[in-house]
Amino acid sequence: MTSDQVLTALREQNIELPSWAFGNSGTRFKVFGTPGTPRDPFEKVSDAAQVHRYTGAAPRVSLHIPWDLVEDYGKLAAHAADLGVTIGTINANLFQDDDYKFGSLTNPDPRVRAKAVAHHAECVDVMRATGSKELKLWLPDGTNYPGQDDLRERQDRLAESLQQVYGLLDDDMRLVLEYKFFEPAFYSTDVPDWGTSLLHCLALGDRAKVVLDTGHHAPGTNIEFIVVQLLRAGRLGAFDFNSRFYADDDLMAGAADPFQLFRVMHEIVGAGALAPGTPSDPGWDPAGPGVNFMLDQCHNVEDKIPGQIRSVTNVQQATAKALLVDRDALRVAQRAGDVLGANDVLMDAYHTDVRPLLAELRESQGLDPDPMAAFKASGYLQRTADERIGGTQAGWGA
Amino acid sequence: MTSDQVLTALREQNIELPSWAFGNSGTRFKVFGTPGTPRDPFEKVSDAAQVHRYTGAAPRVSLHIPWDLVEDYGKLAAHAADLGVTIGTINANLFQDDDYKFGSLTNPDPRVRAKAVAHHAECVDVMRATGSKELKLWLPDGTNYPGQDDLRERQDRLAESLQQVYGLLDDDMRLVLEYKFFEPAFYSTDVPDWGTSLLHCLALGDRAKVVLDTGHHAPGTNIEFIVVQLLRAGRLGAFDFNSRFYADDDLMAGAADPFQLFRVMHEIVGAGALAPGTPSDPGWDPAGPGVNFMLDQCHNVEDKIPGQIRSVTNVQQATAKALLVDRDALRVAQRAGDVLGANDVLMDAYHTDVRPLLAELRESQGLDPDPMAAFKASGYLQRTADERIGGTQAGWGA
Amino acid sequence: MTSDQVLTALREQNIELPSWAFGNSGTRFKVFGTPGTPRDPFEKVSDAAQVHRYTGAAPRVSLHIPWDLVEDYGKLAAHAADLGVTIGTINANLFQDDDYKFGSLTNPDPRVRAKAVAHHAECVDVMRATGSKELKLWLPDGTNYPGQDDLRERQDRLAESLQQVYGLLDDDMRLVLEYKFFEPAFYSTDVPDWGTSLLHCLALGDRAKVVLDTGHHAPGTNIEFIVVQLLRAGRLGAFDFNSRFYADDDLMAGAADPFQLFRVMHEIVGAGALAPGTPSDPGWDPAGPGVNFMLDQCHNVEDKIPGQIRSVTNVQQATAKALLVDRDALRVAQRAGDVLGANDVLMDAYHTDVRPLLAELRESQGLDPDPMAAFKASGYLQRTADERIGGTQAGWGA
Amino acid sequence: MTSDQVLTALREQNIELPSWAFGNSGTRFKVFGTPGTPRDPFEKVSDAAQVHRYTGAAPRVSLHIPWDLVEDYGKLAAHAADLGVTIGTINANLFQDDDYKFGSLTNPDPRVRAKAVAHHAECVDVMRATGSKELKLWLPDGTNYPGQDDLRERQDRLAESLQQVYGLLDDDMRLVLEYKFFEPAFYSTDVPDWGTSLLHCLALGDRAKVVLDTGHHAPGTNIEFIVVQLLRAGRLGAFDFNSRFYADDDLMAGAADPFQLFRVMHEIVGAGALAPGTPSDPGWDPAGPGVNFMLDQCHNVEDKIPGQIRSVTNVQQATAKALLVDRDALRVAQRAGDVLGANDVLMDAYHTDVRPLLAELRESQGLDPDPMAAFKASGYLQRTADERIGGTQAGWGA
Repeated sequence: MTSDQVLTALREQNIELPSWAFGNSGTRFKVFGTPGTPRDPFEKVSDAAQVHRYTGAAPRVSLHIPWDLVEDYGKLAAHAADLGVTIGTINANLFQDDDYKFGSLTNPDPRVRAKAVAHHAECVDVMRATGSKELKLWLPDGTNYPGQDDLRERQDRLAESLQQVYGLLDDDMRLVLEYKFFEPAFYSTDVPDWGTSLLHCLALGDRAKVVLDTGHHAPGTNIEFIVVQLLRAGRLGAFDFNSRFYADDDLMAGAADPFQLFRVMHEIVGAGALAPGTPSDPGWDPAGPGVNFMLDQCHNVEDKIPGQIRSVTNVQQATAKALLVDRDALRVAQRAGDVLGANDVLMDAYHTDVRPLLAELRESQGLDPDPMAAFKASGYLQRTADERIGGTQAGWGA
Repeated sequence: MTSDQVLTALREQNIELPSWAFGNSGTRFKVFGTPGTPRDPFEKVSDAAQVHRYTGAAPRVSLHIPWDLVEDYGKLAAHAADLGVTIGTINANLFQDDDYKFGSLTNPDPRVRAKAVAHHAECVDVMRATGSKELKLWLPDGTNYPGQDDLRERQDRLAESLQQVYGLLDDDMRLVLEYKFFEPAFYSTDVPDWGTSLLHCLALGDRAKVVLDTGHHAPGTNIEFIVVQLLRAGRLGAFDFNSRFYADDDLMAGAADPFQLFRVMHEIVGAGALAPGTPSDPGWDPAGPGVNFMLDQCHNVEDKIPGQIRSVTNVQQATAKALLVDRDALRVAQRAGDVLGANDVLMDAYHTDVRPLLAELRESQGLDPDPMAAFKASGYLQRTADERIGGTQAGWGA
Repeated sequence: MTSDQVLTALREQNIELPSWAFGNSGTRFKVFGTPGTPRDPFEKVSDAAQVHRYTGAAPRVSLHIPWDLVEDYGKLAAHAADLGVTIGTINANLFQDDDYKFGSLTNPDPRVRAKAVAHHAECVDVMRATGSKELKLWLPDGTNYPGQDDLRERQDRLAESLQQVYGLLDDDMRLVLEYKFFEPAFYSTDVPDWGTSLLHCLALGDRAKVVLDTGHHAPGTNIEFIVVQLLRAGRLGAFDFNSRFYADDDLMAGAADPFQLFRVMHEIVGAGALAPGTPSDPGWDPAGPGVNFMLDQCHNVEDKIPGQIRSVTNVQQATAKALLVDRDALRVAQRAGDVLGANDVLMDAYHTDVRPLLAELRESQGLDPDPMAAFKASGYLQRTADERIGGTQAGWGA
Repeated sequence: MTSDQVLTALREQNIELPSWAFGNSGTRFKVFGTPGTPRDPFEKVSDAAQVHRYTGAAPRVSLHIPWDLVEDYGKLAAHAADLGVTIGTINANLFQDDDYKFGSLTNPDPRVRAKAVAHHAECVDVMRATGSKELKLWLPDGTNYPGQDDLRERQDRLAESLQQVYGLLDDDMRLVLEYKFFEPAFYSTDVPDWGTSLLHCLALGDRAKVVLDTGHHAPGTNIEFIVVQLLRAGRLGAFDFNSRFYADDDLMAGAADPFQLFRVMHEIVGAGALAPGTPSDPGWDPAGPGVNFMLDQCHNVEDKIPGQIRSVTNVQQATAKALLVDRDALRVAQRAGDVLGANDVLMDAYHTDVRPLLAELRESQGLDPDPMAAFKASGYLQRTADERIGGTQAGWGA
């Protein structure tokens, strides 16, 4: 790929930001707040827009319902538009109601399942109000002790509940279903792996896809292999990018294992799946193969907006390197059984310092070549810290 | 379940033994031999028959081709029949030929793939000669370094090769495809998880099923959950029972985590999948849900026949406990959201000492109540050690 | 060991309960409350006393400072004494102050380190007021990102801070230092393993010991091996018993892997370390080898008092089985290189149903043979649910 | 650090090569041979010398006894000297004798322990004959089943055996003791972690140090933290560099996680431990803090000499990046609690493409800037493949 082609591809890449990354988050031990943390969805969107302003690569914001419930979505959408961003995926929240102690869509009690399904109707309303076309489900459902519930029946209930949720969607909407190895359930999790998510999506229909959160796997799992499998099945709906050293640490994308992020992007580029396939694109097909590249992170100890900026630039770096892989040479070495030669071709791209290329990209877009420095210089953090006095800082509870 | 019902269920349970467990095995560091180790398939079958003789629960022996190639399979089958056992699953070997350095069914070289497919034709011939109806594939295929080969193309080649192998089967035969997390490949493995195996089986047809080896998962994986998923999909073809503390340790079934084995059998019993569903049963349906319970172990430091006896009795213990679970009480507690009560019902069965029940079972079958003691008292180990002098002891190489 | 000897040993065993197990706990996603949850340390002690009342094996309660701060410790101790229990270990809390965002005893800022040390002086005051002789430290300290702080300097600061804390102790007090693999820090943890904890204890002096929390290890870690090492070094101060399938799940002891708990107790019994060695014993030597067997759990979805009762009885079951191991026969088999024979001796004890023996133990102590049933029948849960209206339920924040 | 200082530091760095990396190796499933594989220690040394010839950074070769036993070590040393390399560490082999089935230095049988100790006397003889000053022990010792042997007694035996081995050393020799999480033992391993190795080294004396093999840890272990701990204790004797995705995969150093290798070297540089501290250096102190940087790898599917070259250059790249870290800026950011700023300083070095710098280094040393290309162009592989006909290729058995 020529340098121009790489720049063109990078220019088209976009990454969706999670509104909740701008609120406070933490561990079960402690949530540390920071001055200037948003108090409502409008302020979250404002912060997200800063990330796009300086990176030029993050034009959408995911909402989390009910955390981001507002009275007037037209107003929120207008606020976003004013700042150059749009509303992206709508995330259903199934983990903060006392009724969900033993599960939401898989709960043994039909009343609770109905309530959980009804929450999705509310989400679909938000989708209609905001123009969002993607409904994301992540279930905390599972059990903590062997015997606590019947594993098979939980799958049957899940299948039935998902059918109902899927039925709520308009024809131009799609459902993406996330899996997670463990937490908050500690014995069994109802959607613990890509196989389970895929089986349910296959049963639902073409507009059901799998979400791959890079932190949701067992130790040692080859994530890029799963990317390949889901792309091959036409069912990779979205990424939740973040990184981890241990469990679902939710660190910044690319921070813990930048080589893994590169390998993931290498498979994406190889499959031609980098091209925008998100709902805001013209020609959007909810049953199509488009992948939504989203972040899902917790900035427990670092500043939030800079944490998002760094994550976006880390994904861009990994992408740029993946675009630089000499795929013709790679194929030649692979076909020749030249293990080291093939590995060298890949590593040659990885070892390349692509920061000058990304600086060039940004300058060609009228952006500062160093988004982090430019944001810091803007004084935004200090300004919001000064202005956002009073009220309750947003967090996972609101 | 009444005690009589439990005994009836246990009486019908049967477990298949791997011929290779009677040969020498070890680690990459060292293979320790023991006196009396079989030198050929006939002696392996003789040893396997000892396990059945004392447990009454292990009437079949899996063969591994080419390790168990013989000139006259009629003679081998007759030898088995004389000793009260039959030939079970035929295992294809794809990991000991220099040609397979970069893969067998997924090799970039079409000549090697054709060779690997042809090996299965040889296996199917053995199946016809022995009356076996089950062809088992475990692939060592994968790569050691990122970039070494194209992950996506390897899947495509695999799909094509599997189609050819599947096409070799007679209508009353089935193919079972095993997955494994890693080893011998250390970067990517072509069939690393149940999702991948299942996707390929779904593409092949009804007579393709998944093999779950209990040692082939990432740390922390909830194996009984996978059992549930595969049973729900009608695609759990067989178990390879063994146990592990770390990786694919291939220790005796039930030795490392007897509670896990119990939980697995609890799901099996709950799904009604314990009932014999193996090719030797009347009414065998190669497309049906029957599960073949096999052992696959390496007795690196312990005696082999006693190691197999203990494994069989461990599976029986776990099964007996699973049969004793008060499923009505369990359901009541589960429906009531009584976490501890439900767990207690399960643990009540697990804590039960079922050895008296198994002794009763054996006595009702005309067996010694203590298979291990009876085998030791038989002098067989000493006798074979004295008799099997000369020749080359069987191992993974032969 | 004769049955009488086993009963005698079991009669002497005692297990310390954590006050915080009776308050609410959960995950970062959600904390579920339950009716009747204590509102203050007095109610927590009352609940803990219920566990002792029905098991006869849990005579002490650990406090957590500042969660369990009260104005008058004489009154709290008297309350405990009235209910037949005493105050045990005092736990310092270093994870809920905004100042500790970047560490407590390892914080780069000397002011924060001094504050953290001062908190221990407060804890020592509580020890003096309650008669407690054991100060327990668990540090959440660590970093989330490579480069965030200097790993080596954090160890140096830790060593210095610990010296100061150690210097606060009276001569008949000891310090126990807990290690944890990860969480809440996600890149580096300052005391991540037994080696680190031991090195610091060795530097401090004879009255510094290691705490082994059974949930604080990497996947696959052989915990009983660490028990052996720490006992051999004379530095196993205490256990925090709980169980886990994945990370620090904090499930009930013995719930996830009862065989592991048995193996741990087998090493304890083999080393003669079961005999009471806790501060409340006559002849207590703070520099001696006594091990304090404590629970540290989170009853996220199950009832708390029953959860503690079950955990205590699980530890008792494991202990009883360990006491039943025929150590003479074990030694003979081990010396003979009889792998299966030695394993069989161990498993023979494990497979034994010791519930009748424990029932006999309890009856000999004037207790109901079934503590769980007796507690349920007492109506305590309903009574406290009715009475404890208003106020704020205790949790990790208070 | 200025570019000149970086070059100077890199020029002094040296890496020791393992003779066995040039022989065949594989998994328990299969060992693939390659044309030209050495048949004896002389040919192995010849191959090792090629790595040094093209990298200028690998001047020593470790031997493995008895694999590398020769009649005349003077001749072997002279052969090495002719090729510009020297003999480094002597590795004792305790895993290939039938007597070691149940352990070597920890075997229950005193005769076997004496034999294992005696093997070290043989190794010390080789050390005297070759001028080697470093004896490396890695024990395969452990058990496969709970109960198989007494864990505590194995430690006592180990301590006693190690004392005897240590007593064999001349005053200017040192002993380095490697630990390993698991394999070939699958239940307990006698030296499974750095804590155990360190405890034994502390008991032995100043000339006993720990070997850290980067592939010998539980999943998720923070290896650079262990580096810090061992350096702080003055007991990091040597590295065995390699890389892994799963277990002890023994892939090329830096191949699986180049960022981890960089973090390790960052701690080494930060502690001033990069400076040569190997026996061949003037002023060598066997009780001093010098770290020997060795490779220990298995080139199962890739060419061996190129595999070693790539590993050496990967270590060099990681080192160069570590040297480029702006430590003053790092400290400022760390002290300021600037999480992202500190991480950025580290990542800035990591993202730098140091290949031009390494090319400059090599040219300044009179070497080809691209060692891999130069070696390939030399025709050595083809030449040895043509010449080394007949005989038995070296492997783990010889």
